[in-house]
Amino acid sequence: MKYSQIHPKTRRNDPKDAPSPGTRLLVRGGFIEQVTGGIWITTTMGLLARRQAERIVREEMNASGATEVEMPILHPAELWRETGRWDKYLSAGIAFHLKDRKGAEFILAPTAEEPITSFARNNLTSYNDLPVTWWQMSPKFRDELRPRQGLIRGREFVMKDAYSFDVDEDGMRASYAAMRAAYQRVFQRCGFSFIEVEADSGSIGGSGSAEFMAVTKYGEDTLIVCPTCHYGGNQEKAAAHFEYPEVPSQNLEELETPDVRTVEQLEAFTDLTAAQMVKTIVLWADDKPVVVSMRGDLEISEVKLANLLGAESVETADARIVEEVTGAPVGFAGPINLFGNTKVPYYFDVSVRGMQNFLCGANRKDVHFIGVNTGRDFPAPSEFHDLSKAVQGLTCSNCKGSTFEEQRGIELGHIFQLQQGYSSAMSATFVDQAGERVPFWMGCYGIGVSRIVQATVEQHNDERGIIWPWSLAPFQVVIIPVNGTNETYQGVAEELYRDLTSDGFRVLLDDRDARIGAKLTDAELLGWPIQVLVGRSWDNEEALEVRQRDLRDPDVSVFNQEGSSLPTATMKPQELFEFLRQLRQKHENLNP
Amino acid sequence: MKYSQIHPKTRRNDPKDAPSPGTRLLVRGGFIEQVTGGIWITTTMGLLARRQAERIVREEMNASGATEVEMPILHPAELWRETGRWDKYLSAGIAFHLKDRKGAEFILAPTAEEPITSFARNNLTSYNDLPVTWWQMSPKFRDELRPRQGLIRGREFVMKDAYSFDVDEDGMRASYAAMRAAYQRVFQRCGFSFIEVEADSGSIGGSGSAEFMAVTKYGEDTLIVCPTCHYGGNQEKAAAHFEYPEVPSQNLEELETPDVRTVEQLEAFTDLTAAQMVKTIVLWADDKPVVVSMRGDLEISEVKLANLLGAESVETADARIVEEVTGAPVGFAGPINLFGNTKVPYYFDVSVRGMQNFLCGANRKDVHFIGVNTGRDFPAPSEFHDLSKAVQGLTCSNCKGSTFEEQRGIELGHIFQLQQGYSSAMSATFVDQAGERVPFWMGCYGIGVSRIVQATVEQHNDERGIIWPWSLAPFQVVIIPVNGTNETYQGVAEELYRDLTSDGFRVLLDDRDARIGAKLTDAELLGWPIQVLVGRSWDNEEALEVRQRDLRDPDVSVFNQEGSSLPTATMKPQELFEFLRQLRQKHENLNP
Repeated sequence: MKYSQIHPKTRRNDPKDAPSPGTRLLVRGGFIEQVTGGIWITTTMGLLARRQAERIVREEMNASGATEVEMPILHPAELWRETGRWDKYLSAGIAFHLKDRKGAEFILAPTAEEPITSFARNNLTSYNDLPVTWWQMSPKFRDELRPRQGLIRGREFVMKDAYSFDVDEDGMRASYAAMRAAYQRVFQRCGFSFIEVEADSGSIGGSGSAEFMAVTKYGEDTLIVCPTCHYGGNQEKAAAHFEYPEVPSQNLEELETPDVRTVEQLEAFTDLTAAQMVKTIVLWADDKPVVVSMRGDLEISEVKLANLLGAESVETADARIVEEVTGAPVGFAGPINLFGNTKVPYYFDVSVRGMQNFLCGANRKDVHFIGVNTGRDFPAPSEFHDLSKAVQGLTCSNCKGSTFEEQRGIELGHIFQLQQGYSSAMSATFVDQAGERVPFWMGCYGIGVSRIVQATVEQHNDERGIIWPWSLAPFQVVIIPVNGTNETYQGVAEELYRDLTSDGFRVLLDDRDARIGAKLTDAELLGWPIQVLVGRSWDNEEALEVRQRDLRDPDVSVFNQEGSSLPTATMKPQELFEFLRQLRQKHENLNP
Repeated sequence: MKYSQIHPKTRRNDPKDAPSPGTRLLVRGGFIEQVTGGIWITTTMGLLARRQAERIVREEMNASGATEVEMPILHPAELWRETGRWDKYLSAGIAFHLKDRKGAEFILAPTAEEPITSFARNNLTSYNDLPVTWWQMSPKFRDELRPRQGLIRGREFVMKDAYSFDVDEDGMRASYAAMRAAYQRVFQRCGFSFIEVEADSGSIGGSGSAEFMAVTKYGEDTLIVCPTCHYGGNQEKAAAHFEYPEVPSQNLEELETPDVRTVEQLEAFTDLTAAQMVKTIVLWADDKPVVVSMRGDLEISEVKLANLLGAESVETADARIVEEVTGAPVGFAGPINLFGNTKVPYYFDVSVRGMQNFLCGANRKDVHFIGVNTGRDFPAPSEFHDLSKAVQGLTCSNCKGSTFEEQRGIELGHIFQLQQGYSSAMSATFVDQAGERVPFWMGCYGIGVSRIVQATVEQHNDERGIIWPWSLAPFQVVIIPVNGTNETYQGVAEELYRDLTSDGFRVLLDDRDARIGAKLTDAELLGWPIQVLVGRSWDNEEALEVRQRDLRDPDVSVFNQEGSSLPTATMKPQELFEFLRQLRQKHENLNP
């Protein structure tokens, strides 16, 4: 395309309230324009970027064996009532919903489990029809309380969603595995630095759900990740592994600790570190107390405890309950004389397993024990549970080899094994080989397609602007006549533009009558991978000045870099074609 | 694709309430499935059909110089209040609208004039930026009172809409002309028999609006069309031309017509035809009477009269008013002694101009005049107006050469010259060469993309099923092994499938283990242009049986047709390739 025909062009001023480079650069570059909170216009240029993401997603979906369908955007309430999600979404306030002229209720699709399960119910009747995975790419809607960060958390966005239908659990896992592999290829081809965060590493051959996260400090989510095996999750999900060398047992002793209650106070009062202590907490889960013991340097994860108990809410118990349960004021609880004696449910975190000679409260005011050993000083628990928040520095429970690191990320995709929840609720069954009606085994799989565009910019930018990866670049090459009124330069630029375009490259011709400085600044802000300047080198030797946008990764065999300027090379047109074809080849090899 | 992987397959029963072949065949073939009134799932097969229509629309939009953008689906009420369309759409009941969690109001886009005019207002600031035409293809919504005929009148549908912005009226007309040419190419390439219906043929170089209608007896609209110049419209829009040979004037005479009041009664009572009479009608326009005289065989068009008067409502006046205005009971009105004497506004239809020696009422009970001549017996009107309904048989007012025909049609597209209505209302201005702020001169242009799919089926079908035109066919070729368990046939079919697909054809392999009769019936219902059977001819001479779906148009140089069977030919694989390449060439030449 010609830049003169594209509107808007680059903007001079940063938008208000754009804390991340993604929003700032997409607005400055004229890729998106806000209509109202969380609702955006995608401009010609923005759409060209998203089309590349769409192409990659489409290719990988079709290659995975899934077939494309299209559910409507307006879903009748009746379908959502079958699964109970109507009330759930409406009470959460997250649903855009409306009534038609006759009073019938609809929700604007946030996802499409209900209509697609109904579609399966109508059309997949026998085990012979299965497995089937259907996918679609369409606008989705969420009435976010706080829309933010441009396309990252919008209220209207483009999502690719897919749904698999299988005869049994093994089938579901196979469909899930195929989609998982497709997701890995999609995010590789998009050029992301990403991690796959598994929710449940325990089960072999596939987990219950996994998130694909683009790593960027502008991510919404904090992640605890193993750099070796890539297992991880948020703090309330990832599980650490604990192992202690065996040492000679010390004697149990009482320690007077007058008004010394917290781990920090105990560290100051004794020569022990928090990791040599066991802290014991009383919590209030729904309407009952519960006790948890864990290593002193860790934090309780209310989410993990709630999942273990199947509780709706978990919070710290108040002082009166603590005293009722432990017989001592807050700050002096411990397992000795409590675990095995109390009727209150009592759980041990995995961090306690194998600890020796530790400090813990004595369940008496102003007294702690030291030299405590499990099994000798209180009964050995029959099991331990993962109940503490994962933090960096702990050992990965999956590979047991590396220690967790903390990163921030943007969720790009999410895959779930749904089992038979939706199909059972909707009586969506097929007839199996034995002639029995069985609810489908389902999976569901989502990719935030408009989000891909902005997550790419969050990852790939510098102080000059965007640095598009080759695969997603709306234009891979920009051709810039150095002097907009020089007819020779214009003619050469036009010819290059036509030839490169017909060779299959995505090419922008900056045909504006503007200063070269402004054109170069725009080309850097807009982030095209390769710039081709038609100027003085043409006069001298019919050559072009070729510049590479990505300062971080100059191809030293081709480019020279001096000072702060972009890596530059001088090429004859034929050399440029060969160089670009090699570049394309390289990227296609990276993205088979 | 392989048919085993596509769901649903053909259905055995006709859907309920499907009066047109389009809905019936699309449902039977498994292209669409209803979710609720006017809301449909588009299946894999239906989507493949629509993708072809989308491709053609996209190619022609880009070729026309328009650039693609994407407006959101949720439009804030504030934008629609700027043009007054918020109240208009809501009171018409046609808008799907909702409130978000904070109470802000939105409409689900039926069209996008408001956000795109706002986008222009923000980004097109100078005459240097113009002209610009933006287009998008996206879901649109109308809460139809009576959704019907499948994709023809749905409540959620895919529409291509485009909007042009120009510096002046000439520019607007040029943008309109470019889009009109693109529309003609789109509908030609889709294989439609269509007509372009102009709303206003009077102005040279472009009309105010035009509709593109697919001609089919299952169309919603009745059209009056000139077969020569293609001018036309509905009855309340198209204008006829009237011309009479000059003849010697007869004398004016009174005729006693006791209780003979209607044109039919007068035809029986005299030897004159209705076309030799002038009838005079008193109407009630808003709150005032008005008189119209027209030729006796025509019908008043209340719409045309309302447009002429700028009236909200026009209806026949009651007997009391007729008597007050004409001095006679109903059935005896006429221009003599009335036109020129009454203060009631009096209009003559163009059909009266040039009539001689006609019959009309005498404004006295039981009396008519015959041998009446304008200018001699009553004053000649200074002007005549188009006030009668157009019907077949009348002369076209545009080319004055042919007579109108009556047809039924489905609206495929609509183009409008919007002038400055939206831009003025929204203060959307640019700075012109003189430095003045001027509202944009706009046009808007729509194509019903999902509707194209069904309109195609309404036009192209027979008693066996759909007959897809080559350009829109989801699959151009189906390959059918005659015996699903014969490994030789399967191997040949698979190889053909791979080779034809990689040669760029859209190919379906019917790989089901089903009876050949069922496969052929399905192939005919589904309407693939070319069927390739791998069967006995392969055993005998390594040849294929090739059949053409369109019985109406067999290529006699290639195919033999016997009895009721499809036109058939026997070809070696190499001959099949050559034949298909020629066929593709032919269609590409038709659709350059």
